[in-house]
Amino acid sequence: MTRWSPTDYNPDDFANRRHIGPSPAEMAEMLKAVGADSLDALIEQTVPAAIRQSEPLDWPALSEAALLARMEEVAKKNRVMTSLIGQGYYGAVTPPAIQRNILENPAWYTAYTPYQPEIAQGRLEALLNFQTMVSDLTGLPVANASLLDEATAAAEAMAMAKRQAKSKAGAFFVDRGLHPQTIAVIETRAAPLGIEVVIGAAEDLDPAQVFGAIFQYPGTYGHVRDLSGDIAALHVAGALAVIATDLLALCLLKEPGAMGADIAVGSAQRFGVPMGYGGPHAGFMSCKDELKRAMPGRIVGVSIDASGNRAYRLSLQTREQHIRREKATSNVCTAQALLAVMASFYAVFHGPVGLRAIAQRVHLNAVTVANALRAAGAEVAPDAFFDTITVRVGVGQAGILAAAEQRGINLRKVGRDRVGISVDETTDAGVIARLLDAFGIDEAAAPATLPAIPDDLLRDSDYLTHPVFHMNRAESEMMRYMRRLSDRDLALDRAMIPLGSCTMKLNAAAEMMPLTWPEFGALHPFAPRDQAAGYAEAIGDLVDKLCAITGYDAFSMQPNSGAQGEYAGLLTIAAYHRARGEDRDICLIPVSAHGTNPASAQMAGMKVVVVKSAPNGDIDLEDFSDKAAKAGDRLAAVMITYPSTHGVFEDTVREVCRITHEHGGQVYIDGANMNALVGLVKPGDIGGDVSHLNLHKTFAIPHGGGGPGMGPIGVKAHLAPFLPGDPREDDSGAVSAAPYGSASILLISWAYILMMGGAGLTQATRVAILNANYVASRLSGAYPILFMGNRGRVAHECILDTRPFAEHGITVDDIAKRLIDNGFHAPTMSWPVSGTLMVEPTESETKAEIDRFITALLAIRDEITEVAEGRISAEDSPLRHAPHTVEDLVAEWDRAYSREQGCFPPGAFRVDKYWPPVGRVDNAYGDRNLICTCPPLEDYAEAAE
Amino acid sequence: MTRWSPTDYNPDDFANRRHIGPSPAEMAEMLKAVGADSLDALIEQTVPAAIRQSEPLDWPALSEAALLARMEEVAKKNRVMTSLIGQGYYGAVTPPAIQRNILENPAWYTAYTPYQPEIAQGRLEALLNFQTMVSDLTGLPVANASLLDEATAAAEAMAMAKRQAKSKAGAFFVDRGLHPQTIAVIETRAAPLGIEVVIGAAEDLDPAQVFGAIFQYPGTYGHVRDLSGDIAALHVAGALAVIATDLLALCLLKEPGAMGADIAVGSAQRFGVPMGYGGPHAGFMSCKDELKRAMPGRIVGVSIDASGNRAYRLSLQTREQHIRREKATSNVCTAQALLAVMASFYAVFHGPVGLRAIAQRVHLNAVTVANALRAAGAEVAPDAFFDTITVRVGVGQAGILAAAEQRGINLRKVGRDRVGISVDETTDAGVIARLLDAFGIDEAAAPATLPAIPDDLLRDSDYLTHPVFHMNRAESEMMRYMRRLSDRDLALDRAMIPLGSCTMKLNAAAEMMPLTWPEFGALHPFAPRDQAAGYAEAIGDLVDKLCAITGYDAFSMQPNSGAQGEYAGLLTIAAYHRARGEDRDICLIPVSAHGTNPASAQMAGMKVVVVKSAPNGDIDLEDFSDKAAKAGDRLAAVMITYPSTHGVFEDTVREVCRITHEHGGQVYIDGANMNALVGLVKPGDIGGDVSHLNLHKTFAIPHGGGGPGMGPIGVKAHLAPFLPGDPREDDSGAVSAAPYGSASILLISWAYILMMGGAGLTQATRVAILNANYVASRLSGAYPILFMGNRGRVAHECILDTRPFAEHGITVDDIAKRLIDNGFHAPTMSWPVSGTLMVEPTESETKAEIDRFITALLAIRDEITEVAEGRISAEDSPLRHAPHTVEDLVAEWDRAYSREQGCFPPGAFRVDKYWPPVGRVDNAYGDRNLICTCPPLEDYAEAAE
Repeated sequence: MTRWSPTDYNPDDFANRRHIGPSPAEMAEMLKAVGADSLDALIEQTVPAAIRQSEPLDWPALSEAALLARMEEVAKKNRVMTSLIGQGYYGAVTPPAIQRNILENPAWYTAYTPYQPEIAQGRLEALLNFQTMVSDLTGLPVANASLLDEATAAAEAMAMAKRQAKSKAGAFFVDRGLHPQTIAVIETRAAPLGIEVVIGAAEDLDPAQVFGAIFQYPGTYGHVRDLSGDIAALHVAGALAVIATDLLALCLLKEPGAMGADIAVGSAQRFGVPMGYGGPHAGFMSCKDELKRAMPGRIVGVSIDASGNRAYRLSLQTREQHIRREKATSNVCTAQALLAVMASFYAVFHGPVGLRAIAQRVHLNAVTVANALRAAGAEVAPDAFFDTITVRVGVGQAGILAAAEQRGINLRKVGRDRVGISVDETTDAGVIARLLDAFGIDEAAAPATLPAIPDDLLRDSDYLTHPVFHMNRAESEMMRYMRRLSDRDLALDRAMIPLGSCTMKLNAAAEMMPLTWPEFGALHPFAPRDQAAGYAEAIGDLVDKLCAITGYDAFSMQPNSGAQGEYAGLLTIAAYHRARGEDRDICLIPVSAHGTNPASAQMAGMKVVVVKSAPNGDIDLEDFSDKAAKAGDRLAAVMITYPSTHGVFEDTVREVCRITHEHGGQVYIDGANMNALVGLVKPGDIGGDVSHLNLHKTFAIPHGGGGPGMGPIGVKAHLAPFLPGDPREDDSGAVSAAPYGSASILLISWAYILMMGGAGLTQATRVAILNANYVASRLSGAYPILFMGNRGRVAHECILDTRPFAEHGITVDDIAKRLIDNGFHAPTMSWPVSGTLMVEPTESETKAEIDRFITALLAIRDEITEVAEGRISAEDSPLRHAPHTVEDLVAEWDRAYSREQGCFPPGAFRVDKYWPPVGRVDNAYGDRNLICTCPPLEDYAEAAE
Repeated sequence: MTRWSPTDYNPDDFANRRHIGPSPAEMAEMLKAVGADSLDALIEQTVPAAIRQSEPLDWPALSEAALLARMEEVAKKNRVMTSLIGQGYYGAVTPPAIQRNILENPAWYTAYTPYQPEIAQGRLEALLNFQTMVSDLTGLPVANASLLDEATAAAEAMAMAKRQAKSKAGAFFVDRGLHPQTIAVIETRAAPLGIEVVIGAAEDLDPAQVFGAIFQYPGTYGHVRDLSGDIAALHVAGALAVIATDLLALCLLKEPGAMGADIAVGSAQRFGVPMGYGGPHAGFMSCKDELKRAMPGRIVGVSIDASGNRAYRLSLQTREQHIRREKATSNVCTAQALLAVMASFYAVFHGPVGLRAIAQRVHLNAVTVANALRAAGAEVAPDAFFDTITVRVGVGQAGILAAAEQRGINLRKVGRDRVGISVDETTDAGVIARLLDAFGIDEAAAPATLPAIPDDLLRDSDYLTHPVFHMNRAESEMMRYMRRLSDRDLALDRAMIPLGSCTMKLNAAAEMMPLTWPEFGALHPFAPRDQAAGYAEAIGDLVDKLCAITGYDAFSMQPNSGAQGEYAGLLTIAAYHRARGEDRDICLIPVSAHGTNPASAQMAGMKVVVVKSAPNGDIDLEDFSDKAAKAGDRLAAVMITYPSTHGVFEDTVREVCRITHEHGGQVYIDGANMNALVGLVKPGDIGGDVSHLNLHKTFAIPHGGGGPGMGPIGVKAHLAPFLPGDPREDDSGAVSAAPYGSASILLISWAYILMMGGAGLTQATRVAILNANYVASRLSGAYPILFMGNRGRVAHECILDTRPFAEHGITVDDIAKRLIDNGFHAPTMSWPVSGTLMVEPTESETKAEIDRFITALLAIRDEITEVAEGRISAEDSPLRHAPHTVEDLVAEWDRAYSREQGCFPPGAFRVDKYWPPVGRVDNAYGDRNLICTCPPLEDYAEAAE
């Protein structure tokens, strides 16, 4: 070390490699291994020159400290008011123990969707608690583990009713008491499916004319009434009844199941999740038993493992889009797992007694307000309500809204002469006093003691009877329960998750921090815009940056998942064609596309035509040309993924776009693989008309154990007028409930983009490609690598072929489970090609971690050789017995290999080894014996023995 | 459930039992087990009526939400400026990954001191990293794992020099370039030890007159100069040289070791730890090898476990106060472990290249400022500096300070005509521009490129060469390293830590949250008081509440540990006697006292006279009376603990106080057991004159893996004038560097007190007593319970006698290590009685967790019976082989018991079992082969094999 050596080390900039895994020295070694002279050279060999963007991304990188200072500045531009707006979003108290130990804990937020159940038992248990909570409160036996929001859940229910109802009527009845944003999304979703939406008061409902109906209970303006009669009438006509409801209200009110409802939907937001200017929150759905196989979304079920011990897993996956594609029940993929987990812990935290007490307090506060207003001569409606009332204020509406705002309160504007008031868990005497003061009432309100709910609408069934909701609620116990569950899971905070297509990159701490600041969390999505100037600035700048990255001209932040983005993009295309008077409905999709693509196209009312792959994995250009030509003036869109889902930069992409445009179609470029493009290639430059971006893949939003996600769409200028809009506006084409989808997590992507800077983002892309090519080079001797591209390079992921091992009885499952013994989450299995593993290391992983993974896969390959050469049978091999548990170690050992070989294969940590809590889970058993709520206590006792 | 059942469940108040472990139903069962009719009855049987307080504590409980709102309100009253004050406290960037994964992570902050090394390998490794960092940067081979702050570290160094120097001179030289607060603490500490403190410029130093000298390097006003000559002269005279230094400066400057220094001290605050209005931060000390056995504080060392694998542990514990009592090298007990861990990760995060770059940037910014000021004609000193300069401003001083403040900057007032400027890691061009603007300089400063450090003062040795400081710094890797280390440890977030006397109660999430708000973290301890109005309000209210709880009239928040509190309390007593012209120096201390008591008394210049225990464990009143009488008018103080360290409410406490007062002595009641008193008994009411409170025991500050702590002292009015004061004032009697000690963590205790309310605090005390009596009742058949009190009740802890098992070869160690197999931290071992276990469950633990612990101890008792009855030898028993590791399981199993018996004794979790990373650690080996810095790479490679 010299005595004085000026250096350009900047501890804060991206050069400190927060997101860039390999060090410069490691990169040099890796380049050597892949046989490239430099990173520049590798990129040139990988990314076709013809499509490279000409100018680099040019904004500077912010340090972590500067980022947090900028965030604080933006945060201060939001003005946090007491929201009494209601309309599906309520003030809620997030218990600090849940905030700190779940929402701010990487063990929870960096986890992936629990497709590998052996390493996901903790969050599966929490999600099963969520399902049990929803099922109990709604009084319907089967619930899923969350949907995107209440509005999309309602639309899913409509589609489900359409499929399942005996009635073949073409219309769906929508109670005009639904939240307006829910109606907007239902209208959007109904149109392409050819469903007529009839909006009206309950008395307008003609059961014979509809296949189903949805009611809001309590209604958006507060009404509660018994829906049993309407539902019975629907059933007589062979139609199904859906109730959009509120979990807190159901702690007091007669449950939908008791009224005969077939499906219940809603949002679990007010169970401890901040409003976040619109999200993310967990939407929910529950249904009658006979409808369960038609239910969209993920369902956690109970099964057994190889030793017969209880194990949780995702059930009935055959319903889902990744299996059924355009025949799927829905395109839903991402859930709101992290938020569902939070809501479930909120219920565990308070238990039924606590929830009931909160509901009662909320209700009595609402009654107190209503009484005080009535005593002052105001006209208040309705008579029976839970937490929401409206007050006729006539021409004084603007004045009252302003007076309330002056007192720090937002009310809801209802029509031209009413205001709405929804009280919530956070409403206290101080808020009530300020509220009444806004109405000129200055004496203190007498606290109400009697409910404003008719006796026959009060609930008389128990709920949350399972022991988990009666556990000791001392914080020590709660904290330890959360820790234990998280310890059962393997997330990104312990090891690489090399999931092809899922881009499990680092979610940096600095990016996550602002999320739990109240200035971002406490905003209602329909708060006056001038109170959300901070969000406007953040989202505005994010859109500018995304336009620069993608080459598009406009973005919609509505879609709150990738699949939602696909759907929104296709609707935008459809609206564009329609506006031009063209009748186009054919969507070409390569056979290798994500399952969501055909599922979304189907939902958007398009007819899917599948395009073949060439032997090298590229789109079969001849087949494509033929089918495009055949579609002709009915060609609406082509959906491609770039680089392809085979992990290759196809040279033909411009040609595909050209042909599409030639036939008048629009090009949808799926942004799933954007992590291989940022800074190098702009989809909008190479022929794309629309793309969605998976902000939870490429732009550092954590996967949250299966959500949240965000799938905003970018479009070229000609499509901008047709983007989905604000659900508050008429004919908005809204695809989700809130104007900016799950707005609060947009901050994570914005932080990522600001801290990386243009150069850092580009370097991330380059290193993602390097890491993938390094994996391919190192493993190519052991596993055939499919689809290496014309220049012998993969893009940001690579596909390992395991089909040759089938003849020896070794399946891709065996390899995936064996990797758990090494302490790894498996790569993506059997997609896009059955019998393969798709590996995406991402730029965040270091050479050491990638080498550990390679060591593991090479050792597995050796074990396969042992089997292939007959030294051990597949059945007796450690591959088949994987994953190994501590129970295996403690029990009698009668294996054909040693404990050491079984438990510590090369690559596994010793001291820091991750032990799966269960052995290999029996999927078939779980689907045969479907249990989707917490099993009874006796079962727990048994399992404990 | 009835349809409408008003309830008084308040989800937010203490009734939701955040801190109260047993549910009401569980309490009923527990009362039955202890044979008490009610909790009231149990308390009556336990706490003597004569000492019970007459009025309950009366403030209401705040909900978590209300607490956070109150904290926010208070936070806003602090005005955060850019501090350029320096003087030992600097702006620092806490990397978000460290903030989130260490400081905000209960796995780190709820851990206990690593006395049980098998379950503390993670934090021991982090602390070894800290020692290595300090050792490397200071150039001295041995470092400890932190002291309380720089000032107390300097005072410890003085005492160490006094003991170790060959010179028998009586004076200690203090460079007047030391930080004033350091000088203040040295003066406080020197007086009772009879050390003369000579303060002067280096040229005033006469080596023959001193046993040692301390220099500040860089000096408080910025000077850097080579001290080699002064040090050599000291050595010739047989005196020792101490350098108080700055770790960041040492990244550029010649290190103290290279100048011949014997000891180096300082603060690691600016390595990523917020200023926090004074603390907590890690003080450090390093020394030459020959001095290591005289070094105070904890030292992590490297040893081996039962299988010969490397294992970390605390070394040389025989130096410490809990072993050597009044002969200890110091009374230091609490360290600043959590902050040392943060600082060590900061060094890992940046590595030597990064630290050097930061140091260079800081230095060049300082030079930039100096150049600009000089160019404008200002007189700037010194010529050679690192980060600090002073500027002569003459009569304009007040004006400049005000002008800077108007621009958001605090400068240091130096004398009457200068201001001091210290730049730091957070200083950027914007700060420099604002600063210069305050001096009326408006052109942009030209960035300096050349150092203002003489070439021979630039460092030319390497540092942080160990691989851990060169690990890949991608955040994925950093995050996983932090996670792996924390997973190796067993902390309160996974299991009860039933440590008698240590009160390991819950540290609630809501209490911890405000700690990381910038309004509390970014304040300099010497910021103008009007900028710290929030802290003033919080601390003021905390003092009011503590007075109400204790019955005292005034508090000093100076002492930043319990032992520091004892010391401060005794000094207060001594000052009181002195002021009355009395010459009293005898301190009576019961034999069962905490080791810190006699060590503190000795440091306070008192002569310790030990008082016997009666057979029932109480103070032997006769012996006490005799010794008090014998001391007569030399009786300065009596130190007692109440309830006693035997866990008993002695009836005689008032009598002891009466006798003490009769002889003119003062009563010091050690607050270690305050958890058994709050709301029931006020020490100030029963005769106490002074007490310290361990806020990190009774008042919910987490133990942080061995600190921080806070030990404020309360006194009766007559002692209030003699309390230690603000170190900025002359003759302050300051015992620590900052006016309010580790001010920021006072917020935790304040939050706890506010959220519990008076009734909640009292209930906590009652339940702590219930839990302890429940343990005693359940275990009394299996283990003799010592000291049950006159009414057959223990207080808040109970002592299990394991001495009867010695004849069968089973030691208390065997039991402690076997508890690890059950997933528990051992109770306090062999204190206050050798061969015993002292159990303190605290109020936070649930009946289920306590039952699990009881199950474990009963099973251990059965295992002892097996040995006692000769069915298995002690050597062959699972007790002796405990704890069992995964390595044991995987290896050949040749034990006399099964794997199942070894690893899953009753009480152990199965799925959620905690596995210790090492087997039983060999303590003797570690002390024989002392290694206190990270072992070389080869050793790691070996261990990895």
